[in-house]
This record gives sequence, C-alpha cells and structure tokens, in this order.
Amino acid sequence: MKLQLALDVCTIEEGLKLVGAVADYIDIIEIGTPLIIEHGLRPVTLFKERFPGKLILADVKIMDAGEHEAKLCFAKGADIVSVLGVAHDSTIAGVIKAAKAYGKQVLVDMIDVHDIQTRALEIEKLGADFLCVHTAFDIQSTGVNPLDELRLINAVLTVKKAAVAGGVKVATVGDIVKEKPEIIVVGGGITSQLDPVVAAKRIKEIMEESI
Amino acid sequence: MKLQLALDVCTIEEGLKLVGAVADYIDIIEIGTPLIIEHGLRPVTLFKERFPGKLILADVKIMDAGEHEAKLCFAKGADIVSVLGVAHDSTIAGVIKAAKAYGKQVLVDMIDVHDIQTRALEIEKLGADFLCVHTAFDIQSTGVNPLDELRLINAVLTVKKAAVAGGVKVATVGDIVKEKPEIIVVGGGITSQLDPVVAAKRIKEIMEESI
Repeated sequence: MKLQLALDVCTIEEGLKLVGAVADYIDIIEIGTPLIIEHGLRPVTLFKERFPGKLILADVKIMDAGEHEAKLCFAKGADIVSVLGVAHDSTIAGVIKAAKAYGKQVLVDMIDVHDIQTRALEIEKLGADFLCVHTAFDIQSTGVNPLDELRLINAVLTVKKAAVAGGVKVATVGDIVKEKPEIIVVGGGITSQLDPVVAAKRIKEIMEESI
Repeated sequence: MKLQLALDVCTIEEGLKLVGAVADYIDIIEIGTPLIIEHGLRPVTLFKERFPGKLILADVKIMDAGEHEAKLCFAKGADIVSVLGVAHDSTIAGVIKAAKAYGKQVLVDMIDVHDIQTRALEIEKLGADFLCVHTAFDIQSTGVNPLDELRLINAVLTVKKAAVAGGVKVATVGDIVKEKPEIIVVGGGITSQLDPVVAAKRIKEIMEESI
C-alpha cells in the first residue's frame, strides 16, 4: 500500500520544500493537474531529479490522443501517467501502449464514471495498472467520499489494482485502509494541515498498522 | 462563423511560423492539449503577445477544480478555456464563474458525452458560451465524424452556440458549414497539408460562401 502526495495548489518551490519535509512517509509524488497546466512537464522532470527514489505521477488526466500525450510524459520522467476512465477504450489502450514501451505504469482516474463496476471490468481487461476511484474536488463539499466506490470496484476487480483519491485525511484514512487499496492519494489532507509532516507521518502509520 | 486553428503536434516555433502564414484566414488560435502538457501556459501567453488580434483558446479540457484551473488560464492570456462536458455541473459552473470574472469565454468539449442532446441542454442552462461536438482523434480512423452530433445539438440548443471539431478538412467542411456552427475547429486539415496556407484559405472561403 503506497501513499501518494498530490501537489495541486502550490508553487514548485513550495512543493519541493514540502516533499523534502515529508519524504520519509510518501512513496509517490503526484504533479497535480493545475501544476501541469501552469508549468507543463517541467516539474515532473524536476521532482524526478530531486527525488529519484520516489515514483512521479503526472496527473494529466488524458482524454484523447492517448499514446502521444502519454509518451510526452514518460519521456520527461513520469513513472505513472493518468488517463480518464470516461475516455474511449482506444485512448486508454494508447496510454497503456506508451507505458509498456517505456516500462512504466498507467493509472485510470474513474472520476465521474457512471456504472463504475462495469467500467472497472472493461478497463481491467485493457491492462491498466491502477484504477483510481476519485471524488471530484468540486463535489467534496457535498459530503460525498470515495469509500463506497472503492468497495464497489474491489468487489469486481480480479487483481488488486485499486487507488483512491478525493478528500482523504487522517480522520478518514482508517476506513479506507481496511479496503486495502494499492495507492492512497492525499492532497489537502497533508498539504493544507497546520503541520503537514505530522499529518503525513500519522497517515503512513495508519496504513502500516493495517498490514 | 469563426475558424479555429488547433496546434497539437508541433513545436512552439513551428506553431508561430504556421500561424504567421495563415493569420489572414483564422480567427482563433487553439493551444492544443499536448502543447499545454509539454509547455504549460507559456505558449498561451506567447501567442497572445505575438497575435493580439486573434482569440486564444487554451484547450486544457478541465475535468475538476474548474474555477481554479480556469483562472490560471485566463490570468495568462487565454480568451477561451475548454472544460469537458463529462465533468460535473459544479466543475463547468466553476469555469463559467472564472470566465465571467475575467470577461472571457468557455467552450464545453462534448467529447465522449453519451446522450448528447440531454447534456447539451443541461450545459446551455449553466451558461456556457460554446458547446463543441468533437470526434476523438483516437477514433477518427473508424470513420466517425462530428457532423451527426452537430445536427443533434443544433436541434436542441435555443441559441446558436455550436462548435465542431475532429478531423475537419477541405473535403468535409462544406457539409459542416450548412449547419452554421459558431466555430469550426481544424487541426491536421490545415497543419498536416502539403500547403497549409492553401488549405486554410480554401476552408475560410467555403465558410464565407455559406453566409
């Protein structure tokens, strides 16, 4: 079970400082969509250089031109690239083809997928490495959380491939680890805390206690 | 009826040179998703500076954190920002809110939307400026084209707001102009042609003949 830190609403400098402080507790550094929109793939390369022992996920949320866009990311140092579960099968297959060519991995972001169990099975067949249930930031204030969807995809996946994202924090991670996802993604649950190091350490402890 | 040139698979230098050559025939410069993944918003700012008389569309295909991501784009010079039609209403509403704050516009990309007429009406109510039917690059080889979907949304929209994208070229633009979309998006139909200037000129002529 890996802990992924999502860097979304920070500068590159703030992100570097934060990752340096919590490096002992995280496994994957996510270069979030807003950072990529603003800076392109430069932070992907930069964080890989500065933290070579960590996996770097480029959260590009690919929707089309899967093989081409994924290759751009892998060429610049990404270890994992995200593609949307609502994209065409051919787009997801293109991202997976690019990942295989580079010996890297693909995370399919299931945000806003309807009938998540049917789609999870289709995407598992395509050969994705991870399927990430994801409560959109824009609806987290309604109280929705990704735990129910995590249970739904775990009930159908034949191999453990689940990841989970969307408002995860110290108070909620205990229930999530019981479902044994491969990756737990935390953003504001670490980055927005008064003491991000304490939050990251506590979340990692809860994950390790569950094993 | 505006002609939008999509810059997807080129370097920034190639794009600047191409736009310089076809500037007389195009109205909107689209900084394509692959360019934004690679370079961030730098080309948005750069093309706006170099071609201040053209509208700049940042094809970021927003899926979450709508207001935040859209503000990043408008702050760097985008006139129009794209958001996915498959995103939550709250995400699309956030992009529209950001656009209003900047006095700018929103194009909703209807790629991979099921039941396009129902969704078009929902999105029109949210206040989007343009709804773009869009045949994904990754399925264009199957022979699908966006004309049927253009007719479907035109049949339900109460105000003319349609845009159309996905494999449009000289040979197909004649049928498309008959449906009178507000924006016609052309990428490879200009950029991949032996003589892009001739292609752009001919497409613009066909558009003007239809008025």
